[in-house]
Amino acid sequence: MFGQMLENVRTKAPLIHTITNYVTANDCANILLACGGSPIMAFDAGEVEDITTLCGGLCINIGTLDQRNVPAMLAAGRKANQLSHPAVLDPVGAGASALRTATALRLMREVRFSVIRGNISEIRALASGHGGSRGVDADMADQVTEGDLERTVRSAKAFAQRAGAVIAITGAIDIVTDGDRAFCIRNGHRDMRKVTGAGCQLSAMTAAYVTANPDDILTAAAAAVCAMGLCGQRAHARMTAADGNASYRGYIIDAVCNLTAETLEAGADYSVL
Amino acid sequence: MFGQMLENVRTKAPLIHTITNYVTANDCANILLACGGSPIMAFDAGEVEDITTLCGGLCINIGTLDQRNVPAMLAAGRKANQLSHPAVLDPVGAGASALRTATALRLMREVRFSVIRGNISEIRALASGHGGSRGVDADMADQVTEGDLERTVRSAKAFAQRAGAVIAITGAIDIVTDGDRAFCIRNGHRDMRKVTGAGCQLSAMTAAYVTANPDDILTAAAAAVCAMGLCGQRAHARMTAADGNASYRGYIIDAVCNLTAETLEAGADYSVL
Amino acid sequence: MFGQMLENVRTKAPLIHTITNYVTANDCANILLACGGSPIMAFDAGEVEDITTLCGGLCINIGTLDQRNVPAMLAAGRKANQLSHPAVLDPVGAGASALRTATALRLMREVRFSVIRGNISEIRALASGHGGSRGVDADMADQVTEGDLERTVRSAKAFAQRAGAVIAITGAIDIVTDGDRAFCIRNGHRDMRKVTGAGCQLSAMTAAYVTANPDDILTAAAAAVCAMGLCGQRAHARMTAADGNASYRGYIIDAVCNLTAETLEAGADYSVL
Repeated sequence: MFGQMLENVRTKAPLIHTITNYVTANDCANILLACGGSPIMAFDAGEVEDITTLCGGLCINIGTLDQRNVPAMLAAGRKANQLSHPAVLDPVGAGASALRTATALRLMREVRFSVIRGNISEIRALASGHGGSRGVDADMADQVTEGDLERTVRSAKAFAQRAGAVIAITGAIDIVTDGDRAFCIRNGHRDMRKVTGAGCQLSAMTAAYVTANPDDILTAAAAAVCAMGLCGQRAHARMTAADGNASYRGYIIDAVCNLTAETLEAGADYSVL
Repeated sequence: MFGQMLENVRTKAPLIHTITNYVTANDCANILLACGGSPIMAFDAGEVEDITTLCGGLCINIGTLDQRNVPAMLAAGRKANQLSHPAVLDPVGAGASALRTATALRLMREVRFSVIRGNISEIRALASGHGGSRGVDADMADQVTEGDLERTVRSAKAFAQRAGAVIAITGAIDIVTDGDRAFCIRNGHRDMRKVTGAGCQLSAMTAAYVTANPDDILTAAAAAVCAMGLCGQRAHARMTAADGNASYRGYIIDAVCNLTAETLEAGADYSVL
Repeated sequence: MFGQMLENVRTKAPLIHTITNYVTANDCANILLACGGSPIMAFDAGEVEDITTLCGGLCINIGTLDQRNVPAMLAAGRKANQLSHPAVLDPVGAGASALRTATALRLMREVRFSVIRGNISEIRALASGHGGSRGVDADMADQVTEGDLERTVRSAKAFAQRAGAVIAITGAIDIVTDGDRAFCIRNGHRDMRKVTGAGCQLSAMTAAYVTANPDDILTAAAAAVCAMGLCGQRAHARMTAADGNASYRGYIIDAVCNLTAETLEAGADYSVL
């Protein structure tokens, strides 16, 4: 299942309009090429609609948020919606500043996202802020652990239903849910936290996966999350004593480049709740 | 011939004012250092003239185009012209949006470039748009292959004459022409397409080569294109089974760092039409 | 002494608000993670105060200066001052354009920095410009060598006193002084000049060191400078014949990731003047 999704990315080579932060833009571009997609990065309001139209999918990441570029993000998102292109939101830093939270919520209100991917703090900030209430979603724990997995899955499902999007929460255990089913994914390696922008990269790759697999957004997003985690494991196995987070960063993208459908199927470690 | 040009870069260590996109800026800076030059990256209208004056050459790349920065690009270009510094244009994405095409054409109208380097689609977009006609240049094929090489060389020469610049079209076969002679270069490796910004890097390096060899812009540009392709081949030969596009990215810059005049002379694979 | 400072970074894991250039932002983020800190990169005036408040320290780098973002730099700096968070200034390119020099001087006037780190040209530009005179500080030589070390240390001390900050001048010999004592550090490798942004990375890491060691800013800054130089040496020892500046870039960050207190103590090469 996940293997076929990977194959579809390689076969269809989706072009992804990536509006992202400048810290990890290069890695996002290279991971898109590694997985079989292709990036175009453009954020000027004067061209985002042209670029979105040319592409198959859209990824919006607010990692180095610049308010001057928000209108272009909205325009790209609306154009993607109009063309029925999948759109992914990475609400980097939501909860860390009022502006980030408000901007992510505004994007969610004005654009229909297929997938929203963040860590638990970011998703919780959106879930709490969405609609102005601090209801069940504020129950989300600080970390997703085995102990509070069921509770967090419940909150994530509720938020996915309200948001009308697949929600992907990545951390020690990843949760990917459309509000109905939830994939709980145990791939990954703890040292991935030491590589800046591993999450940004995953969001970009998720855009490629859902664009190449538009009929099953949930499974496609779960496949991308699984692929990233598995590549984190495989890349880590390659490290020598002298290697650190810089080499690890490159090895993860290398692993994505070399990942096959068979390896993904064999290595995927998840349950469905 | 090409070897001497490389030596001149290492001896003169040209300082290049690089106005580029943020996706590949780091790679452009590191390849400039690798080849023997040195980068300064500045795009604020309040300082570009100072910075251009301090440097020996200029490279303008519109990869993450921001309209707010176009006046600074024009100012830097005019200052470079005034000081007779070589200027290189990389019209990234020309043809992909109306804004990119128009901006690249505007830069060409208001600044005299020594070299314009792009892939065939980008150069075709400029050749078609230049002067508003869709004449002979629109005949350029989608890919430069042995079969249509002569026809593409003819179009490229015509465009070089009209543009008054050396035109470098990179792809499976690279064409570098001043409108009179054309170098057809067969160095390179197809996996270079999997490294984001290999073209941006080449444009930056080309600026270093032409700045260090101002009396023969055509040969200098061809030497840079040859050097990049050869380094792509040499870097690929170094790859292990676990390596992918991320390691390849680094190996290419490493190869540029270690390239000698002898190796370049021995490995250069081109004909002149 | 330096070893304990490194341990404090790993234990306290300081969060650093890094307002930096887009050329080396990824390396700055990864070196912060490597040394044990954590980066947040935000530059929008609408959020910098929130982000600074969330963090423990601040690093401002003007490497790709954009005048539109200077008010946000000032706001972040003032907020850091108000909260008694250490702030580090990297005046990249001061002296290369009037705008850079003026901006760096304005930041120095309106924000109280704990550390200002640059190369000798940058520091000299600030020392000359500060107060409008070209006094003793203009005596600073072009390069810090054994021959003119004493004279440069004297100028650096005078500038540190006037600026009310620790001054870190990095080059063949690094000088770190609070105006009273000066560490003269001989770690490092000459090939570090071939890696773009080694200085930017050091400034970011210095912010982590001083934030984790607020009671001894001078020693903390010297420890960071020593650590960077030592990692440059250790990374260089790892290079193969095929490696160049791109691999070196990654190896340096890897070395920072793997550096222990014992190795730092054993490898630190400095005298105190």
